[in-house]
Amino acid sequence: MRQSIMTTRSRRWFLRLGAAWSAALVACRSKTAPPGAEPRALGASVSAYGSRSRFNRAARLVNTNTRVPLEEAASFTPLRDTYGIITPSSLHFERHHAGVPEIDPATHTLTIHGLVDRPLAFTVDDLKRLPSVSRIHFLECSGNSLSEWRRPGESARSDVQRIHGLTSCSEWTGVPVSLLLRECSVDPKATWVLAEGADACKMTRSIPMKKMLDDALAVYAQNGEPLRPEQGYPLRLLLPGWEGNSNVKWLRRLKAMDQPAMSREETSKYTDLMPDGTARQFTFDMEAKSIITRPSGGDTLAGPGLYEITGIAWSGRGTIARVEITIDGGATWTPAELQTPVLPRAHTRFRWRWQWDGRDALIASRCTDDTGYTQPPLADLIAIRGRNSMYHNNGIQMWKVAADGTITNANRA
Amino acid sequence: MRQSIMTTRSRRWFLRLGAAWSAALVACRSKTAPPGAEPRALGASVSAYGSRSRFNRAARLVNTNTRVPLEEAASFTPLRDTYGIITPSSLHFERHHAGVPEIDPATHTLTIHGLVDRPLAFTVDDLKRLPSVSRIHFLECSGNSLSEWRRPGESARSDVQRIHGLTSCSEWTGVPVSLLLRECSVDPKATWVLAEGADACKMTRSIPMKKMLDDALAVYAQNGEPLRPEQGYPLRLLLPGWEGNSNVKWLRRLKAMDQPAMSREETSKYTDLMPDGTARQFTFDMEAKSIITRPSGGDTLAGPGLYEITGIAWSGRGTIARVEITIDGGATWTPAELQTPVLPRAHTRFRWRWQWDGRDALIASRCTDDTGYTQPPLADLIAIRGRNSMYHNNGIQMWKVAADGTITNANRA
Repeated sequence: MRQSIMTTRSRRWFLRLGAAWSAALVACRSKTAPPGAEPRALGASVSAYGSRSRFNRAARLVNTNTRVPLEEAASFTPLRDTYGIITPSSLHFERHHAGVPEIDPATHTLTIHGLVDRPLAFTVDDLKRLPSVSRIHFLECSGNSLSEWRRPGESARSDVQRIHGLTSCSEWTGVPVSLLLRECSVDPKATWVLAEGADACKMTRSIPMKKMLDDALAVYAQNGEPLRPEQGYPLRLLLPGWEGNSNVKWLRRLKAMDQPAMSREETSKYTDLMPDGTARQFTFDMEAKSIITRPSGGDTLAGPGLYEITGIAWSGRGTIARVEITIDGGATWTPAELQTPVLPRAHTRFRWRWQWDGRDALIASRCTDDTGYTQPPLADLIAIRGRNSMYHNNGIQMWKVAADGTITNANRA
Repeated sequence: MRQSIMTTRSRRWFLRLGAAWSAALVACRSKTAPPGAEPRALGASVSAYGSRSRFNRAARLVNTNTRVPLEEAASFTPLRDTYGIITPSSLHFERHHAGVPEIDPATHTLTIHGLVDRPLAFTVDDLKRLPSVSRIHFLECSGNSLSEWRRPGESARSDVQRIHGLTSCSEWTGVPVSLLLRECSVDPKATWVLAEGADACKMTRSIPMKKMLDDALAVYAQNGEPLRPEQGYPLRLLLPGWEGNSNVKWLRRLKAMDQPAMSREETSKYTDLMPDGTARQFTFDMEAKSIITRPSGGDTLAGPGLYEITGIAWSGRGTIARVEITIDGGATWTPAELQTPVLPRAHTRFRWRWQWDGRDALIASRCTDDTGYTQPPLADLIAIRGRNSMYHNNGIQMWKVAADGTITNANRA
């Protein structure tokens, strides 16, 4: 039964999908008459630097619930409304300790000194002339998902952006730090490197020399253009897979040392307080983690039918080997499809097709990386690490889908 | 001989690089005293949607040299000043035939009809609920590098943006067109699909059904966020590896047919006029191509020494297998390093270290894809295709480096 679009303008044109997807779509049927909008006027001209449509309003969630506004400044990536693995630079999460400095790249330098034979300073233009590397890597604040340590039961109304939005993924371009250190002839006694930022608080972290020689980059570009101001323009340290704070932004100084500096941010902050009152220090690796981003907390399903479940997985220790989905609160798990290419220390997009029967469901993802490590249930993490922790929550995120289609945070521990 | 940064502030801190890079860098030595800018005031706060630094002024080159401004509207990606493989969405090249329409996604639909059993119309929200795919692919206007067909000798002062800036690369997310067509139950007699845009000219191209079923996507997201208006917001067709024009933007209609429509854009335009007066039609594939983007035309090298030569290579037929560099006008070629991951139908970043001796040099790249095809010299292309061509110039781009360091377009044919 063939029909011509030119003569038929009833609602039956819409979404009469067959076996696979009709049930999924019938509930979100549009009321617009086909064939839809049809501009007849000439549109806007070309432009030197484009911007997004005014109809697209996805935004970072800005943290205003802070005692010290700039000291605790953060903004969260809208993970439900981002796609693929690249995070738009305008929506990359932020975490600053003294705000975003405005730096003229013509006056900025990176100085390398300390236990080296030949201390050197590099301008940004110098660095751009050196051998470069581009890599797609996630960055996650170790304080991401922090709320779920202490009050998982209390944040039922929270969403994926508010809970987990301190992770993003970009293509970074820069110079291997190993090349810069080699030019300085590092003293074999130097086992640590102090990295210092050019923000007003001079963010300072001690980084093991091994990491600096392994895969650290002095990065000047992000997603094809110079770094965004919030990401360290004109220069940042990138330590693939390591906690966000150690990837010092507005990088101005690297000092080779024979011990860590024991700076504020690696003693009173960014350490993990255990139940016995001791603190784990220098816990740099971001462990394997995954989240279902869509549908997720705050969404309402239109009714029983087929849905695509999608989300992201990543591991600071390597490459995602497997993501599994549960719809029964963790009793059974089924493999999800991974979008290729699956890259080391990068967000990996996963997808899974769900035939929702309309009854209560507890949905979650869990991932395994190529070291064999599997993302743990939140309760297992809390059993070992207690509830004093601020950082490094990589526990499984459980969402509850109620019979009326509403989705809420169902973490419990 | 160790020295303390705290007591030494002379220029010798700068760039006293050793064996490898000192010669390369000595000429661009900065005059700023180390350790550089040191903000002492709190910086800017977090923001909902970030923007770039005011010091970063890279821009698309807007084509104002047109007889019919909107009909010939184009803007060119600043290839020299982009990094890695992802093109920032704000700098993705543009080519419009009736300007950029402003479309409310709530009113936009995609209608599929013609030789199908069940014509359907989809809203954008419908499409977002269907199984999705994300892929990194280049898009190149088939008119890219057009100037080099007719007057390669006349554009000596041209640069890589002006000559080759109609190519860009993004991560695209959308729904396989094959899935949509399957839902419509396409008649086996349907061998072509007409794709129509919602711009005022209703851009119309006929696409072989085989491509639609193979890897075509109905795309709603680019680099992690909804498509930019210039790239077809809220919906475009993506035909991986095929000429830009056929990737219809603002996609509103797909009509299954048993022959091509012979629309304006596939007859009087976007065909290749051969020396004998006949025209090649439906030349969709963008053949393997590469360009050195930095250093390139308009740059001036600071003096003899080591330089990183970098650029991009891509093939509409598959994956880049090899890029080679010449510094002697094509007499000898040496392999360049390819940045991984090397993805099919995507820009591939290559790099090569050049010890410039300060004498005249003719530098170029050439690539080979995994079908075994090698990018030809421009003269070979012109020998076969003549000088009437407008489209599909994938010839080797030669740059001349003069003894004074200036770089110019050295194409000849």
